[in-house]
Amino acid sequence: MGKKYVYLFSEGNKDMRELLGGKGANLAEMTLAGMPVPQGFTISTEACTQYYNDGRQINDDIQAQIYEYLAKMEEICGKKFADPENPLLVSVRSGARASMPGMMDTILNLGLNDTVVEGLAKFTNNPRFAYDSYRRFIQMFSDVVMELSKKRFEEIIDDVKEKKGVKQDIELDTDDMKQLVVLFKEFYKKEKGVDFPQEPKVQLMEAVKAVFRSWDNPRANVYRRMNEIPYDWGTAVNVQSMVFGNSGNTSGTGVAFTRNPATGEKALFGEYLINAQGEDVVAGVRTPSPISKLKDEMPEVYEQFADIADRLEKHYRDMQDMEFTIENGNLYMLQTRNGKRTTAAALKVAVDLVDEGMITEKEAVCRVEPKQLDSLLHPQFDTGALKKAAAIGKGLAASPGAACGRVVFSAEDAKAWHDRGETVILVRLETSPEDIEGMQVAKGILTVRGGMTSHAAVVARGMGTCCVSGCGDIVVDYVKKQFTLGGNVYKEGDWISLDGSTGNIYGEAIATVPADPNSGYFGRLMGWADEYRKLEVYTNADTPRDAAQARSFGAEGIGLCRTEHMFFEGERIKAMREMIVAENVDDRKKALAKLLPYQQSDFEGIYEAMEGCPVIIRFLDPPLHEFLPTKEADIEEIAGELGITVERLKNVISSLHEFNPMMGHRGCRLAVSYPEIAEMQTTAVINAAINVTKKGVYTVSPYIMIPLVGEVKELKYVKDVVIATADKLIRDAGTDMKYEVGTMIEIPRAALTADEIAREAEFFSFGTNDLTQMTFGFSRDDAGKFLDAYYTKKIYESDPFAHLDQNGVGKLVKMSVELGRKTRPDLHLGICGEHGGDPTSVEFCHNVGLNYVSCSPFRVPIARLAAAQAQINHPRK
Amino acid sequence: MGKKYVYLFSEGNKDMRELLGGKGANLAEMTLAGMPVPQGFTISTEACTQYYNDGRQINDDIQAQIYEYLAKMEEICGKKFADPENPLLVSVRSGARASMPGMMDTILNLGLNDTVVEGLAKFTNNPRFAYDSYRRFIQMFSDVVMELSKKRFEEIIDDVKEKKGVKQDIELDTDDMKQLVVLFKEFYKKEKGVDFPQEPKVQLMEAVKAVFRSWDNPRANVYRRMNEIPYDWGTAVNVQSMVFGNSGNTSGTGVAFTRNPATGEKALFGEYLINAQGEDVVAGVRTPSPISKLKDEMPEVYEQFADIADRLEKHYRDMQDMEFTIENGNLYMLQTRNGKRTTAAALKVAVDLVDEGMITEKEAVCRVEPKQLDSLLHPQFDTGALKKAAAIGKGLAASPGAACGRVVFSAEDAKAWHDRGETVILVRLETSPEDIEGMQVAKGILTVRGGMTSHAAVVARGMGTCCVSGCGDIVVDYVKKQFTLGGNVYKEGDWISLDGSTGNIYGEAIATVPADPNSGYFGRLMGWADEYRKLEVYTNADTPRDAAQARSFGAEGIGLCRTEHMFFEGERIKAMREMIVAENVDDRKKALAKLLPYQQSDFEGIYEAMEGCPVIIRFLDPPLHEFLPTKEADIEEIAGELGITVERLKNVISSLHEFNPMMGHRGCRLAVSYPEIAEMQTTAVINAAINVTKKGVYTVSPYIMIPLVGEVKELKYVKDVVIATADKLIRDAGTDMKYEVGTMIEIPRAALTADEIAREAEFFSFGTNDLTQMTFGFSRDDAGKFLDAYYTKKIYESDPFAHLDQNGVGKLVKMSVELGRKTRPDLHLGICGEHGGDPTSVEFCHNVGLNYVSCSPFRVPIARLAAAQAQINHPRK
Repeated sequence: MGKKYVYLFSEGNKDMRELLGGKGANLAEMTLAGMPVPQGFTISTEACTQYYNDGRQINDDIQAQIYEYLAKMEEICGKKFADPENPLLVSVRSGARASMPGMMDTILNLGLNDTVVEGLAKFTNNPRFAYDSYRRFIQMFSDVVMELSKKRFEEIIDDVKEKKGVKQDIELDTDDMKQLVVLFKEFYKKEKGVDFPQEPKVQLMEAVKAVFRSWDNPRANVYRRMNEIPYDWGTAVNVQSMVFGNSGNTSGTGVAFTRNPATGEKALFGEYLINAQGEDVVAGVRTPSPISKLKDEMPEVYEQFADIADRLEKHYRDMQDMEFTIENGNLYMLQTRNGKRTTAAALKVAVDLVDEGMITEKEAVCRVEPKQLDSLLHPQFDTGALKKAAAIGKGLAASPGAACGRVVFSAEDAKAWHDRGETVILVRLETSPEDIEGMQVAKGILTVRGGMTSHAAVVARGMGTCCVSGCGDIVVDYVKKQFTLGGNVYKEGDWISLDGSTGNIYGEAIATVPADPNSGYFGRLMGWADEYRKLEVYTNADTPRDAAQARSFGAEGIGLCRTEHMFFEGERIKAMREMIVAENVDDRKKALAKLLPYQQSDFEGIYEAMEGCPVIIRFLDPPLHEFLPTKEADIEEIAGELGITVERLKNVISSLHEFNPMMGHRGCRLAVSYPEIAEMQTTAVINAAINVTKKGVYTVSPYIMIPLVGEVKELKYVKDVVIATADKLIRDAGTDMKYEVGTMIEIPRAALTADEIAREAEFFSFGTNDLTQMTFGFSRDDAGKFLDAYYTKKIYESDPFAHLDQNGVGKLVKMSVELGRKTRPDLHLGICGEHGGDPTSVEFCHNVGLNYVSCSPFRVPIARLAAAQAQINHPRK
Repeated sequence: MGKKYVYLFSEGNKDMRELLGGKGANLAEMTLAGMPVPQGFTISTEACTQYYNDGRQINDDIQAQIYEYLAKMEEICGKKFADPENPLLVSVRSGARASMPGMMDTILNLGLNDTVVEGLAKFTNNPRFAYDSYRRFIQMFSDVVMELSKKRFEEIIDDVKEKKGVKQDIELDTDDMKQLVVLFKEFYKKEKGVDFPQEPKVQLMEAVKAVFRSWDNPRANVYRRMNEIPYDWGTAVNVQSMVFGNSGNTSGTGVAFTRNPATGEKALFGEYLINAQGEDVVAGVRTPSPISKLKDEMPEVYEQFADIADRLEKHYRDMQDMEFTIENGNLYMLQTRNGKRTTAAALKVAVDLVDEGMITEKEAVCRVEPKQLDSLLHPQFDTGALKKAAAIGKGLAASPGAACGRVVFSAEDAKAWHDRGETVILVRLETSPEDIEGMQVAKGILTVRGGMTSHAAVVARGMGTCCVSGCGDIVVDYVKKQFTLGGNVYKEGDWISLDGSTGNIYGEAIATVPADPNSGYFGRLMGWADEYRKLEVYTNADTPRDAAQARSFGAEGIGLCRTEHMFFEGERIKAMREMIVAENVDDRKKALAKLLPYQQSDFEGIYEAMEGCPVIIRFLDPPLHEFLPTKEADIEEIAGELGITVERLKNVISSLHEFNPMMGHRGCRLAVSYPEIAEMQTTAVINAAINVTKKGVYTVSPYIMIPLVGEVKELKYVKDVVIATADKLIRDAGTDMKYEVGTMIEIPRAALTADEIAREAEFFSFGTNDLTQMTFGFSRDDAGKFLDAYYTKKIYESDPFAHLDQNGVGKLVKMSVELGRKTRPDLHLGICGEHGGDPTSVEFCHNVGLNYVSCSPFRVPIARLAAAQAQINHPRK
């Protein structure tokens, strides 16, 4: 015999979570602490991995170990498995390192068969209990092991109750239970073609296999992907001797928390049912009593439980979520774990535990999931209202929060409806920069196409507006102003609701509750976080409004101020189009001169909103065709506006057509072709800085960022244009204002030649959206079509646009950091891709030594907290 | 005084080419050898670089050195510059490291002015000569230094001749020459607003500046880009004392080669003119005499020249191209250099020099430019016929050779016309895989859109068909079957001619001469090349025809057999489309079953053509929408063929639409989504190999290549499908056939994680086309629009799709080689991108340790020769 795959509860402890799973490790820990735990054993996660390596078979070695430990368990419990005289029955439960609702949970009463049930009836002198336990076991085994729908069994029970004329399970007597057992077994045989297994050891092995198998079911896979749990962890299986909460009125079962998981308030919180098994509490057939009532019903048991709860919280130094069973007046602990909690509760518990001297500030900072903060910052659905609603469809959870409003189909309509006081949801096939004003006034945005980093998603996150993107099931009819989803038609003005945190779409109005960062606890915890973190946290913001919002969330600068969004409104887009259709440099310069005052005043507003913090301004990035119309009618209208022929405008549009716009004429390539654009933008940046500085409140030192650089000479060319323009303006103004010129690292070649690029660039900002696209060789707009197959087939475990791919893209980032600092040791380094607000990516940025991360305003608190946790877990100087 | 910028001829030698340029180094070498060289000095290439660094100024230091060396030269020659008594006159000529026709060439007679000319007339007692020299000087100086068109001066001469009633320059007398001087100076003043410079030192410095300036003129830049000459080399300037071939009938000037530059025949070859200066030979006003006639006219001079020519050839160990002048019966050598020659001559000269014991085989191998071999393998225009033709337009030189044929506008028409015995040129906006049959029968292909690696270009190069792509000036009207270019309309059936080596388009029929590899010399030289090279040379071929062609050119295997081209003909495309519109796996498998026999028999043909050499077969790569129609009429027709509704076909087409197809659902992503495609392709590959092996002539071991891999798990997924399918077929056939599964490295992430990829891949093939696109972040189809600005602004010096970017893409290749071999030391590595046939890229592949390069059949000889040169210049084990 080789490796040890099975452990008695008395052989483990809480630090063996990787091997025994969370449930197993905590059962062991409680056993170790002398608490009343029904004994048993844990089959390790390594056995699960081995099961998959063996082609989904439990090999002989592991089977032998399981039977060996079953024998040990019999000895400890003083009962024999399948012994009709005094049978040992067991529960079988899954238990991964992290709690995973996607997996098989529990089979109770395993070990019963036609003979044993009679023995149990005799031994307990409670035949109703015995047959009730047996029918429950058949039902659970059929459901979770054999995948026979639980509902079909419920229907059989309903039949029996109807015939008897009763309503409650509890009204069924022993004979009824016996009859149910017969009917269940008949149904089982009809469906499966074989008898219900009578051999307890077979039942056990099938149950263990079912747990292993459930690790790979679709629900579990989706859950893992959402929660970044690696597939190769595997699950453990816990086999525990049964205690029976359903053995009479001095028995019962319940769950409880050491603190209120919704508010964090310090008090036992939970509920229990007398004469019931665990599933009854969950099923909600009978209404459980609050835990406080146990104090009256069974004061001694309550005292014992409260004492254990207190010990467990102190032992684990965190709020506990416990399951217990009372069997004939004796308390048994079935599980304890750190309790899940709302964000508000998480903040309060963490801060309270510090105040109670139980944990340190550093530990408190690590107790809150950064991602959780989202729910504090965005409106959420009213929980009661949400429970009554059913989703009509699902898209991507593109920008968090909840929204409720009336459907409109264009940016103009959004604005018009909003102006007359309506709240609206903007529904579009996809959004484009022209829709920006409509997006600004919408409560929520719903698109048919586009992924997590589509225009709609990026802009919505930037604005903190709820967005569900890429719901391909929707059929939109712009002409009729309606859309179809799930067989229903929704017309302009109809109410719908969106959940940007889940992607759910509801065909009705659901009440929302506004965002409410509990400033006391939030403020204290974030204060500690700011003390510990080394990374600066900047924001991506293009308007004074967003900049101010981000400042209020603690942003210490702007890491990415996109300039193209500024060209879409009103007169601006007209001048922009004049620039694009210009046939020579002079005409182009004339058009640019019209854009200059707009851009300059935008920058002034942003500088003021940022109160002297660094502002990194990225020069024009998107391909020019994004500024031109595509529809025939628009083309005609705009040709008229521009005073050129329709044919000429069409020629310009067709000459700007690109096969792969993502890899086309954009970024600094525009400035190389048309240096006058860079001149105008430099003028706006520098003049705005001079003007704001002149007012004497803040000293502005602007940062100019050149996008899409792949070669140092390309950067130098544009930088030379910037410097010539800027230096002249500064000289003419008689100031000695400082400014820096840096670049995005978003093209693999820039990363590969970062040592050369750093000769010219005074700072780097990693544009990990584009860098991810180029490194993987897939476009974020197109990848949606095939990435699902990649998740299903476990090729990728998470979306590389949401979580930085550390293995590939990360290698380029690391290489750039090293090469860049070799050339310029004080090179200032940051990230401004979507990943800047993703906690695991923030940790990576911390580890490779970046100076800052930049993310959309609403993710700034997340990044601050993630940065602090990174420093606490991986301290750097 | 710091650095030495100026060298007397007597201070240099032939090894100082970098510093003195080719011309300067060779003048020094001849001086060293005691040959009659008019003395002078060379201003170094470093002075040119300094000129640009100083903002296009010749700094005081360099000016002082020039004057200092002018004084030394006066001493050597025993004459004084600008001395009316016995003036030293000089020629000023550019001279870069490599000969560069784009640059300023020569100013003769510099130092003349109104005073000096009279002195010269007196001193030589030949006033006509003196004034002729002066008017020539004014003309040349005005042209090359002041950019006044030479033509305007010719018009003045014509005026004077007309008034006098004569036809030949030689009929003009002294007074006419004096009058010309006056008229020239008047014209100069009118145009330039100042007098013609009378101060010889000013003339000299202006001429030197003009040479430096000419290094950066547009012609020179284009030439450098075409010939891969780095911009930072700079040019030297040679200042040489004048000798006068126009000083009477015992004077003259000429050029000659030591061997015939067209055929390589060993005999003095050249021509000369009596009483003339160099420019007269070039201008072609008088007909020069063959060099053999000099033997009769001036036997002593001829003997002396023949002797010098012989010595020079032996000295330089290569065929020489010499310029000489005879002044009053004295021979002077003005220049010698290795002579330019045709490919045929290059081969013969190299082989002859080996036979004559003058050079080694290794040296011979290095004497032929690999690129030159192209002209042996493709038809060329008849030189005489070409001289009379004028190009009507220019596109990209996409696939070499010359073609002449009648215009057709569709693949169907091409086939129809060809079938009735016509030779055709296929003119298309752009080609697509559907056009393949038409492309196969066309003599040449002309496209309006698309770059050097567009579909048309790649396919044409593969077939060895002449192609000019991306001629954006053409306006095509498919309906009227005509195109417009340069103001002319060309209709279907009109004759045009294409030069795929220059990109020129001619609106007429120009006779071509067929390809004719001179097998004797070609064979011997290539034999030596094959002995020395370490790189294997494979080919990219998709048909038995191409495979056989490549074998005949020496290919040792197929490095890239694309499988998608096989799906376009007749019934195949129908089955392919059925596969694409299939709604479930079963229907997809049914359609694939129809494709299987076609693909299998194609592979059998290719295996047989390759005679047991390795054949690397790449699985389906392009996005599926390439197989569907785009035009309304075609959609209707094809929906009918497929037996589905037009709406359904449109839905499929629209669901396959991609924003960036290059980064979309293609490559192995298709096999991940539809593993049954990989199963079918595996079956075809393996069954074909089994069948061919059974015949007992060759043993086939197939290589299966999975494209577009970015992650090892992705490769493993597809490889598992391949192995399961292949192993079963091999088992069932009762053979023990070997096969390998490898991957393309064409996505940056694959290169970055090559150590992981190599765990599964048994070989790597670098797909440097896609790798270049992803690494630079630009699409080859779109980059054409902005890359011109990059060349003009000297950001890129050459097309990264033609020459591998060693700095960026090359770094990824190198990294992959190292990481891949770390995991799998015997990993077989090659390249199958377009770069596989580019000599500098081949050298890079050799240097980083690849095992093979693979290129289109017609580039196989080029790659063989380049590989040999790489080994000779950078030996590896």
